[in-house]
Amino acid sequence: MKKKYVMAPGPTPIPSEVLAEAGQPIIHHRTPQFQEILKASEIALQKIFRTNHPVIIFPSVGTGAMESAVANLTSPGETVLVASSGHFGNRWKEICQAFQVQVDHYETEWGKPIDSMEVQKRLKANSNIHLVFSTFSETSTGVRNDIQALAKVTQAQNALLVVDAISGLGAMPLETDLWGVDVVVAGSQKGFMIPPGLSFVSVSPKALEKSKNSKSPKYYFSYEKSVKKLVEGKSPDTPFTPAITLVIQLRKALELIEKEGIENVWKRHEILARMTRTAVKALGLPLLAPDSPSDALTAVSCPEGLDGGAVSKMFRDDYGISIAGGQGKLTGKIFRMGHLGYIDSSDVILGIATLEMVLNRLGKSVPLGAGVKTVQEIILKENIKF
Amino acid sequence: MKKKYVMAPGPTPIPSEVLAEAGQPIIHHRTPQFQEILKASEIALQKIFRTNHPVIIFPSVGTGAMESAVANLTSPGETVLVASSGHFGNRWKEICQAFQVQVDHYETEWGKPIDSMEVQKRLKANSNIHLVFSTFSETSTGVRNDIQALAKVTQAQNALLVVDAISGLGAMPLETDLWGVDVVVAGSQKGFMIPPGLSFVSVSPKALEKSKNSKSPKYYFSYEKSVKKLVEGKSPDTPFTPAITLVIQLRKALELIEKEGIENVWKRHEILARMTRTAVKALGLPLLAPDSPSDALTAVSCPEGLDGGAVSKMFRDDYGISIAGGQGKLTGKIFRMGHLGYIDSSDVILGIATLEMVLNRLGKSVPLGAGVKTVQEIILKENIKF
Repeated sequence: MKKKYVMAPGPTPIPSEVLAEAGQPIIHHRTPQFQEILKASEIALQKIFRTNHPVIIFPSVGTGAMESAVANLTSPGETVLVASSGHFGNRWKEICQAFQVQVDHYETEWGKPIDSMEVQKRLKANSNIHLVFSTFSETSTGVRNDIQALAKVTQAQNALLVVDAISGLGAMPLETDLWGVDVVVAGSQKGFMIPPGLSFVSVSPKALEKSKNSKSPKYYFSYEKSVKKLVEGKSPDTPFTPAITLVIQLRKALELIEKEGIENVWKRHEILARMTRTAVKALGLPLLAPDSPSDALTAVSCPEGLDGGAVSKMFRDDYGISIAGGQGKLTGKIFRMGHLGYIDSSDVILGIATLEMVLNRLGKSVPLGAGVKTVQEIILKENIKF
Repeated sequence: MKKKYVMAPGPTPIPSEVLAEAGQPIIHHRTPQFQEILKASEIALQKIFRTNHPVIIFPSVGTGAMESAVANLTSPGETVLVASSGHFGNRWKEICQAFQVQVDHYETEWGKPIDSMEVQKRLKANSNIHLVFSTFSETSTGVRNDIQALAKVTQAQNALLVVDAISGLGAMPLETDLWGVDVVVAGSQKGFMIPPGLSFVSVSPKALEKSKNSKSPKYYFSYEKSVKKLVEGKSPDTPFTPAITLVIQLRKALELIEKEGIENVWKRHEILARMTRTAVKALGLPLLAPDSPSDALTAVSCPEGLDGGAVSKMFRDDYGISIAGGQGKLTGKIFRMGHLGYIDSSDVILGIATLEMVLNRLGKSVPLGAGVKTVQEIILKENIKF
C-alpha cells in the first residue's frame, strides 16, 4: 500500500475530476455534443496561449507538434536558425535535418539561457534565414528563455519565431500575440494536467501564410487542413478523428484552470519554484540554472560523488516519487524536480523532506528538516493556503 | 487548485483502484457475477476478522451494525454491561436504552483504557448479566482497549462479548476466534478504505444461538435472515438488495489488503502511529492516551490557550487537510490526527509539517521542521520505503 507521486517535469499529476472524465461513455466526434466541447476547449486554449489566432489540437504528443512546425513552415534546402539551450532545443535541429532543412545551430552552454543578441547577430549575418526555432522552458536543464527578447529580434529581422513551450506553457506567462510569437507548441501532459496524447499549436496569420508556400511534406499535421476545419466551418471540427476522451478530459482541466485563473496559476508556479530553489540552496546544493530558472522544474547540480541517477532512482524505488535524472551530457550530473501542473505546497514539503533523506542515505549529509523549514517559512511569511 | 487530504479517523482516503471500481456499469445482484464477488469478499473479510464464522455485510454505516448487535442479542428488560472509554463506547448505552435494555455502565476517565478487572468485578456482582458491549479503538480519545483481556473475563463469567471495532479493525490485530469475541462490528470507511455505506459483523455460533431467543425487534438487521442467505443457500446471497457498487469496491480494497498482507498492514499502522506520537511529543504536546494508544489515530491534548477546534479548522480551511477536533466533553481540548487506511509515511510528513505551521500561527511556538525531523529519523533508522 504505497502511494505514488509524480514530481517530474511531465507527465504531471492529474486531478481526480479530470481522471473521472475518462470514465464517461465514448461519444461520437461528429456530433453537436463533441463540437461544443471542441469549441469551448479552443476558446479556453486561446486564453492560456494569449492569442486570438487558431490553436490547433493534434492527436499527438508534443514532438508531433514540433514536427508540425517544421513540416508546415519549411522547404527542403532552406536554412533556419535553431537557438537551443539543451536536449529538447536540439530536437528542433534533428527534426529539421530529417526534413532536409539546413540548420544554423546556436547552442548555449547547458544551464545557461539563450542570448537574444547572439540570435540577432546570426540573423543579420544571414539574410536568407526567415525562421527561428527555440524553446521557452528547457526541460533538460530547467532554464527559462526570454521569449519576449527573442521575438523582438526575430521580428526586427523579418523572421518568424517558433517556440517549443511544451513544459512552460501554463506555468509561466508567454504572451503569444503581444510579444509576436508566430507558432507556440504545447503538450497535454504538462501544465494542462491531462494524460499525454494531445498537442496544441497556435498559428499566427503570418505563419499560416508561410505554410501555404512550404514545400515540406505534411498531411496529418497540416495547418491548412486543421485551421480550415477549426475556423471556417459552421462548427469547429477536426480533419481526422480526434482523441475524443482526451479532449473531454482537456475541457475539464481547462475549466479547472479557468476557475483558478491563469494569473493565479502562474503565481502558484512561481511560489512553488521559489520554495524548491530556496530549500535546495539551504541544503547546500547548487542549481544548474541559477540565473534564469524555469518555474516548471528545478534542475539541481550534484556535488562530486553524488550520482543524480541514484537520487532519482531512490526517490522512485524507495519513496514512490517520480522525479527525473539528467539527460544527454548531464546524465548522472543533475537531478530534476518538477513543480508543474496539479502541484501545490504539500508536494514541495514532501519532495524536500524526501530529498533530505535521500541525500543522507547517499552519503551527502544534510540536516534533516532544514530544507522543509525554509518551505514552511515561505508558506507562513506569504500566508499561503494550500 | 488545492489538493485535499483526509487524515481523520474516518472517512479515510480511498485508493484510486478502488475509486475506479465505482465507475463500472451497475450489475444485478441476483447473478452469478455478483455472488462470486460476495463470496470472495466474505472469505477475505473472514481473514481480516480472524474468524471462521460468518461475517455479515450490511448496507448501513457502523452505527447500524452496532444496533444490529443490540437488536439481535438482547431482550427488553434484560440487563447488560457497557464498558466504555469515550463518546463511541457510550453509544452502546444509548442504543441499549432505545431498546428498553437496562445498562450497568462502567465508563473510564476519557483517555484511559478499560480495566478488565473492573468488568470482571461487575460481572461477578451481577450474575444476570450475560452480555458485555465494549470498544476496541475508541475514536473519540485514541485509546486502544485490551480486547483479549476483556474476552478472557467475559468468557470466564459465561457472558458474550460484543466489540465495536469500527476504527480499529484492519489497523491492529483483533483475534476474534482465538480470543473468543462473539460479535465484532466494523465499518467500510475506516481500515477498509472504501466510502461509508457498508458495515460488517462477525457472529459466533454462541451469538447466533442467543439471537434466536432474543425478543428485541429486528428485521433489516436480522442475523438469522442474513446468515441463512449467506451460508445456507447454494451461493452466498443477501436478504435485501445489497449496496452493489460498494460491495464491488470492497472486493477491490480487500484484494489490495490481501496483496499487502494483513500482518504488513498492521505493521504499517504501528509505524505510522509511532511516527505521529514521536513527532507530537517532540513538539512538546502531550498525548491524551499515552499509555494505551490506538494505532488508528492519535489524540493530542491542547496546552492552555490552544483551542483544538481552531487547530483542526486551520488544517482544513488553510491547508486542505481534514483532521478531527474533540467530541463531547473533549470539544476544544484535543485534536485528533488519523493514520488509518490508505495512509503512508508521506502523509505523516505532510501532517506533521502542517501541524508545526498551524501551532506557530495559533501562538504555540514550535521549531519548524523539528517534528518532521523525528519522522525522517524513524524512516531512515528503520529503512522504511513508502
